[in-house]
Amino acid sequence: MADEIPPNPDYKRIATEEAWGPPEMFQAYERLLDEGIDDPGFQSLWGFYWKHPSERASLIRERLQDLGERRLHDMKVSGVDHAVLGLTAPGVQIFQKDEAVELARLSNDVLAEACKAHPDKYTGMAAVAPQDPKAAADELERAVKTLGMKACVINSHTHDEYLSDQKFWPILEACETLDVPLYLHPQGPSRGLIAPLVKAGLDGAVFGFGVETGFHALSMITSGVFDRFPKLQLILGHMGEALPFWLYRLDYMHAAGIRSKRYPHMPELKKKVSDYMRENVIVTSSGMPAEAPIRYSQEVLGEDRVMYAMDYPYQYLPEEVTMQDNMSIGAAAKKKFFQTNAERVFKIRV
Amino acid sequence: MADEIPPNPDYKRIATEEAWGPPEMFQAYERLLDEGIDDPGFQSLWGFYWKHPSERASLIRERLQDLGERRLHDMKVSGVDHAVLGLTAPGVQIFQKDEAVELARLSNDVLAEACKAHPDKYTGMAAVAPQDPKAAADELERAVKTLGMKACVINSHTHDEYLSDQKFWPILEACETLDVPLYLHPQGPSRGLIAPLVKAGLDGAVFGFGVETGFHALSMITSGVFDRFPKLQLILGHMGEALPFWLYRLDYMHAAGIRSKRYPHMPELKKKVSDYMRENVIVTSSGMPAEAPIRYSQEVLGEDRVMYAMDYPYQYLPEEVTMQDNMSIGAAAKKKFFQTNAERVFKIRV
Repeated sequence: MADEIPPNPDYKRIATEEAWGPPEMFQAYERLLDEGIDDPGFQSLWGFYWKHPSERASLIRERLQDLGERRLHDMKVSGVDHAVLGLTAPGVQIFQKDEAVELARLSNDVLAEACKAHPDKYTGMAAVAPQDPKAAADELERAVKTLGMKACVINSHTHDEYLSDQKFWPILEACETLDVPLYLHPQGPSRGLIAPLVKAGLDGAVFGFGVETGFHALSMITSGVFDRFPKLQLILGHMGEALPFWLYRLDYMHAAGIRSKRYPHMPELKKKVSDYMRENVIVTSSGMPAEAPIRYSQEVLGEDRVMYAMDYPYQYLPEEVTMQDNMSIGAAAKKKFFQTNAERVFKIRV
Repeated sequence: MADEIPPNPDYKRIATEEAWGPPEMFQAYERLLDEGIDDPGFQSLWGFYWKHPSERASLIRERLQDLGERRLHDMKVSGVDHAVLGLTAPGVQIFQKDEAVELARLSNDVLAEACKAHPDKYTGMAAVAPQDPKAAADELERAVKTLGMKACVINSHTHDEYLSDQKFWPILEACETLDVPLYLHPQGPSRGLIAPLVKAGLDGAVFGFGVETGFHALSMITSGVFDRFPKLQLILGHMGEALPFWLYRLDYMHAAGIRSKRYPHMPELKKKVSDYMRENVIVTSSGMPAEAPIRYSQEVLGEDRVMYAMDYPYQYLPEEVTMQDNMSIGAAAKKKFFQTNAERVFKIRV
């Protein structure tokens, strides 16, 4: 693939899980690494991407920080018409509260400027600091109402805590009230999930991200988040972190556990786990540009709930765009996948 | 479903992941529970199934211990012609070495008697004690050569250690030499993987089993097990513990990690992760009797690598047999699924 632009199909390609980050945040990451921060997931992820001399790490740290010509060029040559941008993992969630709140504001301001400069190219997702749920809800409101952000992005756990914990629910309430979706993006698994994974070299995107984020999303469902916030829409990358594959087993074993009261604290739900997956979850193809899991997910969740994503710059492969262009699915379903589902979910017109 | 026997199709139904256990083992489980054993996965699993008054727990502990009329009746009324039996999780892997070695021998002797009494109904998988890899290899040889066992079953981690660790490789070598497959069955996640899962009530079959066993199988691949033992065949239940869904991402991110040398100790492999999945792994439909994931797995792994299983007594639902009978897949593929793949893999004729 040189600079050959893929031919124009009769849809726009909206890439819905595209990562970026401001230099100020990465400098703060460097400080944490230099201080020897005791967080195995962060050490593994940013010890690699920020410090490693490999071509992969270098390219990614450069591209993440560019919201200008380089990114626009990469979009153009790979045929991506529009990018939905989110602060890269773990965003501000690694910091202590005050620094996190401050860096979330800064990040949202910078991203809003880029979206304003290139409104036809970029849509922003707001970063928040779940360390301070009330401040996070306020920042989300500012980002949506004042800065024009179209979603909230949270990079899985915050200091080993999950959004199933009711202390975070003001953020979920704000998403529902503001009518913006929540993109639950992976990060390195939490302390209680990571030890064997990092030992095996499987804590990252190869597998651990899916364990962490699939668990996180499922625990939101089983803790009753979507009974409390029935209009909340959760976006999951990497084809739903494999939850669509598990639907039958999730329904059967969750019901068996509830019926037998195996976990006394586990709430009964109004619906089946798979109902929430079909009514409150949208998945994207980030990192999973393969026809078989895409078609599978369309089959079990519905064509309206599967969206295209590139996962730039972590997986910048123009040929993956072509692979997805060439999928043997109908034209209407393909347009939903690449364009109109994202337009509906983010309330944009590309 | 009363005692109505499903109509005879033009295939036999061989259920390939059926659980049992001798009273002696469960009495020893009870002793461990009463002693307050410090193993959160075991406490959660057997604290429930052995101690809980619910109908689910009672029925399962009764049925597990029956290799006679009750089991044969349940097979008959659900249309299962033949059961491949394995010692239920965590088998003997929870005990200290000497007790584990002894209970593995006892279990294999009891199971061999039942298979001898009902050769047309039962095939046995040998239990081993990985705590003593040399003794495990010897016991596997005895079980295969003297008792007629057709596979080895290992219930995932042993005291938090995985088969990717070379200390266990004498067992894998014995499987390859004796030409029997290894069934890697779930158990509660290891200490380093379980904390958030058990807190959320998701450590069991509903989700944690898949995390534990999917990780285990993947770590065997990425540690080079199948380069060292290229003829070894690994059976995974629960539709491959979702690994078939992840094939694209596993290949891409594993290759990216190796290329950039992110984990210096991680070996280069001779093939792609997905190649091992297609050449060294067979999956079964235990707990996942749904058409979509079965067809998906047949598509990505091949029709020769997907087998039927009921997961008796944990998921004894005769209507699930009917669901799988009624799948819209071709007659030849269906016969492979229910019968001939299992005949090939276990070298039996039903």
